[in-house]
Amino acid sequence: MISGKLPKVFYGGDYNPEQWDDTTHQEDLRMFQLAGIDIATVNVFSWAKIQSDEITYHFEWLDQFIDSLHESGVFVCLATSTAAHPAWMATRYPDILRVDADGRKRKFGGRHNSCPNSPTYRKYAESMADRLAERYKNHPAILVWHVSNEYGGDCYCDNCAAAFRVWLKQKYGTLEEVNRVWNTSFWGHTFYDWNEIVPPNNLSEHWGENHSTFQGISLDYARFNSDSMLECYLLEYNAIKKHIPEAVITTNLMGFFKQLDYFKWAKHMDIVSWDSYPRANTPPSYTAMAHDLMRGLKDGQPFMLMEQTPSQQNWQAYNSLKRPGVMRLWSYQAVAHGADTVMFFQLRRSIGACEKFHGAVIEHVGHENTRVFREVAQLGSELGTLGNTLLDATVSAKVAILFDWDNWWALEKSSGPSVALNYVDQVHKYYAALFRRNVQVDLISVESDFQKYDLIIAPVLYMVKPGTAEKLEQFTEHGGTFVTTFFSGIVNENDLVTTGGYPGKLRKLLGVWIEEIDALLPESRNRIVLKEQVGALQGEYECGLLCDLLHSEGAEVLAEYGDDFYQGMPVLTRNRFGQGEAWYVASDPEEAFLDGLLGYICEEKGIPSLLRAPAGVEASVRSKDGKSYLCILNHNAQKQNYHLDEQKGHELLSGEFLEGDVTIEGYGFHVLELS
Amino acid sequence: MISGKLPKVFYGGDYNPEQWDDTTHQEDLRMFQLAGIDIATVNVFSWAKIQSDEITYHFEWLDQFIDSLHESGVFVCLATSTAAHPAWMATRYPDILRVDADGRKRKFGGRHNSCPNSPTYRKYAESMADRLAERYKNHPAILVWHVSNEYGGDCYCDNCAAAFRVWLKQKYGTLEEVNRVWNTSFWGHTFYDWNEIVPPNNLSEHWGENHSTFQGISLDYARFNSDSMLECYLLEYNAIKKHIPEAVITTNLMGFFKQLDYFKWAKHMDIVSWDSYPRANTPPSYTAMAHDLMRGLKDGQPFMLMEQTPSQQNWQAYNSLKRPGVMRLWSYQAVAHGADTVMFFQLRRSIGACEKFHGAVIEHVGHENTRVFREVAQLGSELGTLGNTLLDATVSAKVAILFDWDNWWALEKSSGPSVALNYVDQVHKYYAALFRRNVQVDLISVESDFQKYDLIIAPVLYMVKPGTAEKLEQFTEHGGTFVTTFFSGIVNENDLVTTGGYPGKLRKLLGVWIEEIDALLPESRNRIVLKEQVGALQGEYECGLLCDLLHSEGAEVLAEYGDDFYQGMPVLTRNRFGQGEAWYVASDPEEAFLDGLLGYICEEKGIPSLLRAPAGVEASVRSKDGKSYLCILNHNAQKQNYHLDEQKGHELLSGEFLEGDVTIEGYGFHVLELS
Amino acid sequence: MISGKLPKVFYGGDYNPEQWDDTTHQEDLRMFQLAGIDIATVNVFSWAKIQSDEITYHFEWLDQFIDSLHESGVFVCLATSTAAHPAWMATRYPDILRVDADGRKRKFGGRHNSCPNSPTYRKYAESMADRLAERYKNHPAILVWHVSNEYGGDCYCDNCAAAFRVWLKQKYGTLEEVNRVWNTSFWGHTFYDWNEIVPPNNLSEHWGENHSTFQGISLDYARFNSDSMLECYLLEYNAIKKHIPEAVITTNLMGFFKQLDYFKWAKHMDIVSWDSYPRANTPPSYTAMAHDLMRGLKDGQPFMLMEQTPSQQNWQAYNSLKRPGVMRLWSYQAVAHGADTVMFFQLRRSIGACEKFHGAVIEHVGHENTRVFREVAQLGSELGTLGNTLLDATVSAKVAILFDWDNWWALEKSSGPSVALNYVDQVHKYYAALFRRNVQVDLISVESDFQKYDLIIAPVLYMVKPGTAEKLEQFTEHGGTFVTTFFSGIVNENDLVTTGGYPGKLRKLLGVWIEEIDALLPESRNRIVLKEQVGALQGEYECGLLCDLLHSEGAEVLAEYGDDFYQGMPVLTRNRFGQGEAWYVASDPEEAFLDGLLGYICEEKGIPSLLRAPAGVEASVRSKDGKSYLCILNHNAQKQNYHLDEQKGHELLSGEFLEGDVTIEGYGFHVLELS
Repeated sequence: MISGKLPKVFYGGDYNPEQWDDTTHQEDLRMFQLAGIDIATVNVFSWAKIQSDEITYHFEWLDQFIDSLHESGVFVCLATSTAAHPAWMATRYPDILRVDADGRKRKFGGRHNSCPNSPTYRKYAESMADRLAERYKNHPAILVWHVSNEYGGDCYCDNCAAAFRVWLKQKYGTLEEVNRVWNTSFWGHTFYDWNEIVPPNNLSEHWGENHSTFQGISLDYARFNSDSMLECYLLEYNAIKKHIPEAVITTNLMGFFKQLDYFKWAKHMDIVSWDSYPRANTPPSYTAMAHDLMRGLKDGQPFMLMEQTPSQQNWQAYNSLKRPGVMRLWSYQAVAHGADTVMFFQLRRSIGACEKFHGAVIEHVGHENTRVFREVAQLGSELGTLGNTLLDATVSAKVAILFDWDNWWALEKSSGPSVALNYVDQVHKYYAALFRRNVQVDLISVESDFQKYDLIIAPVLYMVKPGTAEKLEQFTEHGGTFVTTFFSGIVNENDLVTTGGYPGKLRKLLGVWIEEIDALLPESRNRIVLKEQVGALQGEYECGLLCDLLHSEGAEVLAEYGDDFYQGMPVLTRNRFGQGEAWYVASDPEEAFLDGLLGYICEEKGIPSLLRAPAGVEASVRSKDGKSYLCILNHNAQKQNYHLDEQKGHELLSGEFLEGDVTIEGYGFHVLELS
Repeated sequence: MISGKLPKVFYGGDYNPEQWDDTTHQEDLRMFQLAGIDIATVNVFSWAKIQSDEITYHFEWLDQFIDSLHESGVFVCLATSTAAHPAWMATRYPDILRVDADGRKRKFGGRHNSCPNSPTYRKYAESMADRLAERYKNHPAILVWHVSNEYGGDCYCDNCAAAFRVWLKQKYGTLEEVNRVWNTSFWGHTFYDWNEIVPPNNLSEHWGENHSTFQGISLDYARFNSDSMLECYLLEYNAIKKHIPEAVITTNLMGFFKQLDYFKWAKHMDIVSWDSYPRANTPPSYTAMAHDLMRGLKDGQPFMLMEQTPSQQNWQAYNSLKRPGVMRLWSYQAVAHGADTVMFFQLRRSIGACEKFHGAVIEHVGHENTRVFREVAQLGSELGTLGNTLLDATVSAKVAILFDWDNWWALEKSSGPSVALNYVDQVHKYYAALFRRNVQVDLISVESDFQKYDLIIAPVLYMVKPGTAEKLEQFTEHGGTFVTTFFSGIVNENDLVTTGGYPGKLRKLLGVWIEEIDALLPESRNRIVLKEQVGALQGEYECGLLCDLLHSEGAEVLAEYGDDFYQGMPVLTRNRFGQGEAWYVASDPEEAFLDGLLGYICEEKGIPSLLRAPAGVEASVRSKDGKSYLCILNHNAQKQNYHLDEQKGHELLSGEFLEGDVTIEGYGFHVLELS
Repeated sequence: MISGKLPKVFYGGDYNPEQWDDTTHQEDLRMFQLAGIDIATVNVFSWAKIQSDEITYHFEWLDQFIDSLHESGVFVCLATSTAAHPAWMATRYPDILRVDADGRKRKFGGRHNSCPNSPTYRKYAESMADRLAERYKNHPAILVWHVSNEYGGDCYCDNCAAAFRVWLKQKYGTLEEVNRVWNTSFWGHTFYDWNEIVPPNNLSEHWGENHSTFQGISLDYARFNSDSMLECYLLEYNAIKKHIPEAVITTNLMGFFKQLDYFKWAKHMDIVSWDSYPRANTPPSYTAMAHDLMRGLKDGQPFMLMEQTPSQQNWQAYNSLKRPGVMRLWSYQAVAHGADTVMFFQLRRSIGACEKFHGAVIEHVGHENTRVFREVAQLGSELGTLGNTLLDATVSAKVAILFDWDNWWALEKSSGPSVALNYVDQVHKYYAALFRRNVQVDLISVESDFQKYDLIIAPVLYMVKPGTAEKLEQFTEHGGTFVTTFFSGIVNENDLVTTGGYPGKLRKLLGVWIEEIDALLPESRNRIVLKEQVGALQGEYECGLLCDLLHSEGAEVLAEYGDDFYQGMPVLTRNRFGQGEAWYVASDPEEAFLDGLLGYICEEKGIPSLLRAPAGVEASVRSKDGKSYLCILNHNAQKQNYHLDEQKGHELLSGEFLEGDVTIEGYGFHVLELS
């Protein structure tokens, strides 16, 4: 959608003109040019500056700054400023302040601090978006609209309680149905009146982050909270569209962010954008997976890298510098996975408050003679060289991993079987094994089209929502390969167990019956013993966490437990189903097992690795207009060699023609236009 | 008391008919029969179902289900449903909601959630018991009444504050006396008016679980809280007795549960019942000790095992399956220690909310073809075979361990000398040494009859209440052996120090004066050096935690410290007192020392081991009508051999006659009728 | 100031007559005499006893007890009793109760529990001081006035909020200036009305102890809280002075106590007094440093050791006994560093509430035949022998370490770069290196006179307040040596970054520019590689925590980083500046490096070690009337030898003349009158 407008991948980031004087603005515009910066996100936290009381607005400073940017050739990502309400609003309209999970009414402070069901918040936030859109609808500098900022958090106030009851009425119609889906006959929680329902928090059904006595209400409250914020977003979205039907509107997401169901949100975003903040020791595969999730939110549409730090963060425990080359490498990693912008938080560092030690393009020293600035400028120059080559190019995968927020919420609120079960970690284990093979992967929702994939993996698909089992059966029947794991098929969309034998609705597809589920102590392990060689899989492997005790009901048993009283029971099965097959991994295996298993399946199914390369050398392909661009990223500090089999082509940054054995620098990046 | 009614040990557990439809009920009754189940606890959490508003009650479904049970030959343990109030009650009468230790008014949610001093709770709970008793007083299926469920928790609301002041007036008469016993001259806490007294919590005298600035008020509040709940229990108890004077009434206790003084409660229970939930790694000796405490609550009267899980729990961090045979083994362990029922939570698994992953006789799969069901049915069949053999049989011990809730509360609220001091752990150390010798032990209160024992052990008897020292002196004078430890004899019943030299009122009996008490860092140790051999005790042993620096005032010094500036001071003393002797263990020794010490004492005093057996093979004897039944339990996974010295007899389950060397299977159980 | 009154160092401690009857009082007076005790601190927590309602006061018991003391030759340190308000006051005037950091209104309990801005507290506390001063102004026993006790804690109530706004108005004049210094343009926190400002706590800008989203308001609230308590102190101080202009008034401080800016407080104290409670494993250098800080508060004036425990504490996790000799050793350590009293908490142990397990001169046993009492009496006798020898003697140092509370607050509220950064630990590292050399050190404030020192060390001088850089430049210019470290010169007095290049205002003096700051993971290290030998420094050393990446701008580079991408960058620099030099240590080095560095500087600058002695043998000198007293303390349990070079003289306790090689007992103390 953006390709028509700009000749290249956008480059820039957040800038807060309200923190600086005009002299500084001018100096900064000069440096933007030095760095090749052509987009600035402004007005993210200016609500208090723009609106000084209920009826008084001050836009002149913003007019002026946007004009300055425009004159300097910098485009604008215009935020709506509603992510932190003004102090006066909190004082005069306390309904805007949240009540936290401990039932405490907050006072003014922080950000992301407005109750999503506050009438005051909704009124003034919508009004702000309306005024901004009206004022800037014709401004040629504005490329993208950025609603609020990093939506998140939760609220348990009385307005939320009332809104929750309405949400429930809309969803379930009757209180009888609410009682049924929450199984309130347990512990005598039957409701006879809607007003008896109170938000689940640490004063009612919860204790701590992941503990609930009633998962049903907790799950619905998580959905309600996500929906409430989505309503806030939509109020602003629609206010902008009213004035500018063709506006490109987004809000910046945060990868694997638990509180908001981004698949639901993305339907209402014109383009996905997100803020990527890996730690120094975050595995590259994890960041890659997050990019793939963001790309998956809108079925493969390229996204904006809205924020990353040029060097360090401030909010981690130990805020390491990004090593020389790493910012560039991670920027290209985003691009390789579908980003069409490279943007920073922040273009200039604040001098006070909690982000003053967050890295910036322009550091406190204020000039361009810094390592960080030089690296930024070098990347700006390279992106200029690449121009529009990769813009709008897509990523094509034959392998998909199912990811589902409802499953995440339900799984981790579960009381038992093990506190050590972490959904994203399980997903990452499977992702990482494919990453190590350089197999391209999509992260998809249960609503996505399954038929375009050869292999679908659904780690810990605890919750099977209506239609999902049927879709998976159809996918497999038609020749697809399906892989799932322990603790899958347990509950329906309301976290009610599917009785009659686990894995419930997946039982037919998988051809197994899970009789029991054993939770292992952290120090305990069992063994996966292969019955015979399966590809490179042979001998035995460690497993742990949970062990399903299962019986084959037709599935082929490929490996058995090596220990404990369930020694000899199946731990790896494959069920032929129609023209396809459905695999079940009954425990949490070590890495080498997953490498072997997914390696075997990929080879059997002809799912290609993009590159033969040593550990830490990643490959991804984007394609466009019949051309393919192979991106190669060396996450090692040392140079590495990789081998191009049949692929070859010009490396676009150096202009060299690469084929056969190639050397890549430490933290290096190659992008080949394949010929 | 129950022996007259049923021909065998009851077998069954909790069942929640309100969660299931009639078809399921019928199917479950069929499976109960398969499993030999003849008792079901019902109506535990049905308050909201029975009472839909202040004046409307619905008993028909319960009538019907109790009739069904009766028709199927299943007896009923009828709960009163008052352990979780209905949501409507919380909405309309907020006084029923607790205020927690942080001063936060709770909202509706969870269970065990009613303020024990709430007029609303007391009114409707009593009324419910009254109505149930009136309705079911003549029902032939009802065997036992089960008031509420697992009483516990605490409340700090204004109603509790007012009730606390009344409780204090009743106990102390005047405010002057309150000031005296709480030592309020410290830190100027003198009260001039009853209304100045507020409940001690994290807003006043406490911070965290075990920290108080005023132990006196904390101790009294713990007593008051226990008494308040006991009053709630008694309201229901008396309401039932009004209609059914002969009713057998209980409430399910929880072993070493700190908040309630079960010795005080048990006086008002017709039979003790309790819920036993060992973790996978709980030592068998700990579970045995808990059974012995429950048996001790009513001076040796057999008790009900009201709840245990057939396999896993849901609320532990890592919910392991009970290994094959373990459920049977632990059931027999309960019986061996005095249980006259074997009952489960739960007979059928819920499909929603927090206990859906708690094990059940009938699992989610819903049929009888599971390992768990088979083990339950096997045990049911065996209990049928045993019939009434063990029913009402008693356990006879020559060794008692003193246990005291006031001591527990006071000790662990103490500021200093060491946060590592844990009362139950200390008690367990002595218990475990006796357990390893298969010496039968009673856990008794300070009010129990001491004279029937040869040996009384009182680990960390920090608080010596009025009369206790005198009773112990009398016991010893008449030939008894008394053993106590470091940090004993420090305070009176109000946690006021007995001045004039530790161990205060025990000083004469023990013949020692404790001058100082050293607290060791966790990594520090001292040594116990024997002066000469004492039985098997010789050489030296490690000790730690606390080291009393003591002087003998007549006691014989058997061992001295090996290190530090108090090297050479006594650490183990024995004082001849009348015809008996009083031992003092001045530090926290390693296991081998306690094995040696208690081994020596038992041998000297002729206190028998029930069995010569390898580690993990436990023995207990129950006796009845002149016959003794030797129960042998192998807690090891592997088979073991044990040796019967003079004992021999028929093993009742196999019918074999056993004598001499015997092999017992892993997790095996033998019960010999001694001849 | 006290020297005129008493012939010797005072010896005594806290005594609470209100906890004991007359018989006990008489017995205690007898024992005081045995122990050489000549001062008692009374009335610390008697508010409730003295004042039983708004208008009724009871002083008779206090009159009588003070007379008793006086008759026994014991002087009085008279406390004002306002550190814990009476219960009746809390009930009738809830404004006296604090609101905690979580926004919770406290209830009656504990101590140090009054809101410092409570009108009720201020009224009655001032009135109490007034009445006490009026009553006892002519009593010959009263030597020192002790206002309240251990001021501390914080409050966030509405009275504090209102007072905070007034404080801000006084400090900043306009709201515009507040907005500027707090940088409220960040996150749109602009205030348009004073009433919009709320105290920063866990409901607004904070989460947890050391996390704030707005450092500016947090820093000012810390100052405001310290000032509010200081105002309370001053109300009492002035009330006393009104009646007794010559009164010697103090309040007991607590060493490195973060909440109160003691440099500011000490200006209003006639003499500094403090409570010293080292743990068993506190390094002797840490205690020494705390003494030096207390001495530094009033520019070297001797101070009172107001409290220490004769043996154990009660509030530590593991309350070890002080080993024989340690109480004496630590008492003399205080004296060696400038104490003119040795006083205990407590003279007699309470029998109830949380301090009953805190050590006392008179233990629960109640007589004098204890180790603890004997050690107390021995020390009392020795102090008698020493008489007035050391009284009012001063300590003279050529080395000063800068310590600053504002810096402490700002540094540890910082979000980034590393949570592992601890100000006092960093100060202690430099102190300890000098301690190991037996170099005398002063701890001074930024307002102190710098010119009397040869060497000033300012570890992590993150905040450079107005005038400080200039003072340091002047100091160095005139030949002084200045040492500072990483993360210095970053912000101004409002925690606003000094832009233009770190270390900001120190850049010129240090001759370096810090381009970046790397935070290391806890397990990571870098290396300091010396370019050539610097004194004993050679080869390489470990460093960690933070690594500044710096460029010399004229400073000589003495060592470089050994690893990582900044290998070869300077890590130790020296800048010639006028006649002096300014050193920069760019990372957190291991101990041996600091020994080498400070050893080199001391040798170069002719800063003497007081003694050549093995590890753990400490030396300090106090001087008076032209005479010097060398105090030597052996912190080892074993005896040690030390060597007197040119020093020699009579050891005052033994009378021996010492020179050359000397042996000192384990935990021994020597005091030589140097000849």
